[in-house]
Amino acid sequence: MRWSQTFIPTLKEDPAEAQVPSHRLMVRAGLIRQLVAGAYTYLPLGFRALQKAIRIVREEMDRSGALEVLMPAIHPAELWQETGRFADYGDTLMKVRDRKGALLVLGPTHEEVITDLVRNHINSYRQLPVIFYQIQTKFRDEPRPRFGVLRTREFLMKDAYSFDVDVPHLNQSYEKMYQAYCRIFDRCGLKYVVVEAESGPIGGEASHEFMVLAETGEDALVECEQCRYAANLERAEIGDREVAAAPLFAKELRKVHTPGRSTIEQVSGFLQCLPQQMIKTLIYLADGEPVAVLVRGDHEVNENKLRRTLGVSRVELADPETIERVTGAPVGFAGPIGLKVRLLADRAVLLVAGGVTGANEMDYHLVGVQPGRDFQPSLVADLRIAGDGDPCPRCSGVLRLRRGIEIGHVFKLGTKYSAKLGAQYLDEKGQAHPIIMGCYGIGINRILAALIETSHDENGIIWSVSLAPYQVLVLPLNVAQPEVQQTAERIYRQLSEQGIEVLLDDRDARAGFKFKDADLIGLPLRIVIGEKTLQRGEVEMKWRHQSESFTVPVEQAAHRAASEIRNALQRLS
Amino acid sequence: MRWSQTFIPTLKEDPAEAQVPSHRLMVRAGLIRQLVAGAYTYLPLGFRALQKAIRIVREEMDRSGALEVLMPAIHPAELWQETGRFADYGDTLMKVRDRKGALLVLGPTHEEVITDLVRNHINSYRQLPVIFYQIQTKFRDEPRPRFGVLRTREFLMKDAYSFDVDVPHLNQSYEKMYQAYCRIFDRCGLKYVVVEAESGPIGGEASHEFMVLAETGEDALVECEQCRYAANLERAEIGDREVAAAPLFAKELRKVHTPGRSTIEQVSGFLQCLPQQMIKTLIYLADGEPVAVLVRGDHEVNENKLRRTLGVSRVELADPETIERVTGAPVGFAGPIGLKVRLLADRAVLLVAGGVTGANEMDYHLVGVQPGRDFQPSLVADLRIAGDGDPCPRCSGVLRLRRGIEIGHVFKLGTKYSAKLGAQYLDEKGQAHPIIMGCYGIGINRILAALIETSHDENGIIWSVSLAPYQVLVLPLNVAQPEVQQTAERIYRQLSEQGIEVLLDDRDARAGFKFKDADLIGLPLRIVIGEKTLQRGEVEMKWRHQSESFTVPVEQAAHRAASEIRNALQRLS
Repeated sequence: MRWSQTFIPTLKEDPAEAQVPSHRLMVRAGLIRQLVAGAYTYLPLGFRALQKAIRIVREEMDRSGALEVLMPAIHPAELWQETGRFADYGDTLMKVRDRKGALLVLGPTHEEVITDLVRNHINSYRQLPVIFYQIQTKFRDEPRPRFGVLRTREFLMKDAYSFDVDVPHLNQSYEKMYQAYCRIFDRCGLKYVVVEAESGPIGGEASHEFMVLAETGEDALVECEQCRYAANLERAEIGDREVAAAPLFAKELRKVHTPGRSTIEQVSGFLQCLPQQMIKTLIYLADGEPVAVLVRGDHEVNENKLRRTLGVSRVELADPETIERVTGAPVGFAGPIGLKVRLLADRAVLLVAGGVTGANEMDYHLVGVQPGRDFQPSLVADLRIAGDGDPCPRCSGVLRLRRGIEIGHVFKLGTKYSAKLGAQYLDEKGQAHPIIMGCYGIGINRILAALIETSHDENGIIWSVSLAPYQVLVLPLNVAQPEVQQTAERIYRQLSEQGIEVLLDDRDARAGFKFKDADLIGLPLRIVIGEKTLQRGEVEMKWRHQSESFTVPVEQAAHRAASEIRNALQRLS
Repeated sequence: MRWSQTFIPTLKEDPAEAQVPSHRLMVRAGLIRQLVAGAYTYLPLGFRALQKAIRIVREEMDRSGALEVLMPAIHPAELWQETGRFADYGDTLMKVRDRKGALLVLGPTHEEVITDLVRNHINSYRQLPVIFYQIQTKFRDEPRPRFGVLRTREFLMKDAYSFDVDVPHLNQSYEKMYQAYCRIFDRCGLKYVVVEAESGPIGGEASHEFMVLAETGEDALVECEQCRYAANLERAEIGDREVAAAPLFAKELRKVHTPGRSTIEQVSGFLQCLPQQMIKTLIYLADGEPVAVLVRGDHEVNENKLRRTLGVSRVELADPETIERVTGAPVGFAGPIGLKVRLLADRAVLLVAGGVTGANEMDYHLVGVQPGRDFQPSLVADLRIAGDGDPCPRCSGVLRLRRGIEIGHVFKLGTKYSAKLGAQYLDEKGQAHPIIMGCYGIGINRILAALIETSHDENGIIWSVSLAPYQVLVLPLNVAQPEVQQTAERIYRQLSEQGIEVLLDDRDARAGFKFKDADLIGLPLRIVIGEKTLQRGEVEMKWRHQSESFTVPVEQAAHRAASEIRNALQRLS
């Protein structure tokens, strides 16, 4: 493609609204333009990169044996009411009232639609397993669309759904998808971590997120410095090598007056102690039954861990009335000593020495509190949200807090949808069972943004060779100089004939201007043709990700570039 | 692909709601399933065919030099209000109110969005010409979604938009698209006619529709039996070799009492004459000015022709008050004789001899009317809608009425959108002009339906080799027979290795059942492996579109099939 024949509206200035590098660079390099909040037009260069991602996803999904389908964006609202998600999704679900008054939903995901298809057409164990996938446009009315194509209201998703007879078979389907995802992201040239995410209803490590680490990422996760353990904050376990904080107060229980101070911040400020020397007491309702949960003052309860530890289906913070009834004091003064309800403590609580807790009395706290001496939890467990510096649950390493961009998610659904929608199969004996499902998503647009977020410099994008809109840029310094121009044309033609995707910057513009654009759009390999090097029979080549260029004899240029590109692609596959 | 590993839910029975063959067969062959009125899921087989169509469209658009982009489905309503189409589209436009109360439109087409992009980024003649295209999902709340994927509320469209400095350049862009469309439909294996459609505002043959002739088509058109002239009814010209109808009444002007009879049907019944012996007089307002338009009783006025003939921008039937003021009689009794307004006659009117017209008097008509003698039109022209049997405007042939399915449309827009949205360019002298536009659409889903509508038999689909989901079906008669099964597997593997798309019917089912499914899904080439033929060292091959099969030595089967498929593809390209 010739630059003059395509449409690459590069910008010198950063767009004012862009907060993150991928947004800034995708606009500046002429890949995208916003049409309306959270919806972008992909311009020719951006579309080519998007197609590269789509092709890789499709090839690997096909290789995994998944079957491609295409489901509509408009769904009957009834189907979403049947699973209860019409209400659950709330304002995020976009709705259309049609001319006959029927309510339609713009699909934010397709569990309902695919399960409806399966319940109508699959009824025997002989038809299983099957994995369906599609690459299709999703609609979500995000409260805050932002960060360019990272969080939009309209986006392209690869969503897949597996259907199996039992959990062991689901695990096989899940593993197939997990491996396909690794191949997809490897081929894209992304550096990612696979993060354990919250388990599904069928237990085990039933969910993984594929994250690209980036400071600008919206998701928090912890990663072990030493082993490969990584998990999102909801899920992350904590090793049991807790570290004690030094005691501040004498280990003598004493009641102190803390008038009007009820939060950790207020009390620690008033008593001149650190939050980690305090014990927070939270009253929860576990399936309706009040329990007290203790965590250190600087920690937060992980409600998923609490729910699993208690073996209940629902936990929620108690209302003020219940708290007052349980503790005898208003909200803000709860403490473990003397409570009549079940007492659960996070492991770190046991190591607080001479700590501070509420006194179960308005405007009073206790200092010098000693767990084990002053109160005895009925259960000690890992109950808190993991944080930076926590011990790794798998090795002797330490967890570090990171931020990431979620590019993929694999999830064991179990019977969540098949039970509600009545998708059943008959086994060999003719007995009916709900089909066991999994679901698997990849945000296609995010693949591009995540790559750019982690692969750019101050001058522009640094594409991986597999996602680059074109693989090679041929840049004649001065197209008015016939020999330069003809050599550029020849190399362009030779590369094209070898199946290399090449962009020829045929613009009659200053070299500096063209170099700036070249760095901005960031194609992997650049071939510069200039009068001086030509006189030596050479052209200059440079990889975008390297700082040094090298020269190549002009007659070898196309051959060398083509083989370098092929090798680079090979390394990613 | 093995049949047992994919998902092809064929049906024995026709779906009750299906009225046309393509709908019936696409459902029965397991290509599609309806999710909600006017929205279909493409199942694996259907999706593969759809992808074939997409690939052909993309290759030919790229070859034409058009640039692929991808625009959002959600548009800000303001943009549609700016061109006035928010109101024009009415209920067909699907609307979403977002969580902040902003009104969004689901794009039924993208003139507004692309013109908005262009006005923001193109301002110099140096940036023109450019043609953008996309393959993207459109939404239209059709009053009557029907005929399977032929008329839906959600569909895949290839829409392209050209931008040029002037009309001669627009004509070049138009010609590029016209030629690309011919290549696309040729490669798909479609038999189509290119039909002149209503001109745009810049005159000339500014619009063509690509139609596949089918009795079930929703569009009417005329086609010359002799030359290649074809046009839709709105547009079709009529040759000036009018044929006179024999006179019924004596050529003596006489007023007759026709109490309460005002329509052509009533009067011709009452007077026992044929409609073609009557002269209809219609009072129109042409840019607000009343004119009388005469057509034969069995003809209809073509308002586009009338508008063009008069050189006005708008024509509409006059209101009853105007009619009464102009004719002196209520609606239904107008006649040419004695009228004070301008009189226009369709050519055929002049050949009515001893005709019947209104008397401009309530409950009275005139018989024995003689054009030229009793009234003199101020203009005689082609003013009617063409019909079956009308003379061809290009040759001595006769027009025949046909029905067709519109699969593509190319249109010279001129400045319709660029003027309203202010998309201008500066010429060499720095003077601003509105950009000249064209738009070009292809209904991707309709390509499949149109092919099936014209290429099927009572047993099922007959795919063209270019759109077929798989090119070859390998059908072992009895998979329990080891030699049969192993031969089938070997041929399947050999074909796959040669890059042929092959489906292996590995199901352990009766031969008759498998043959029925084979005819239904209609893959182009079938290879049957049976015990008896194998004993002779042969397998049986059959083209779906031919009735006779032929035998091939088993060791040559894969090679022969592959080369036949390649030749067939070659013939279409």
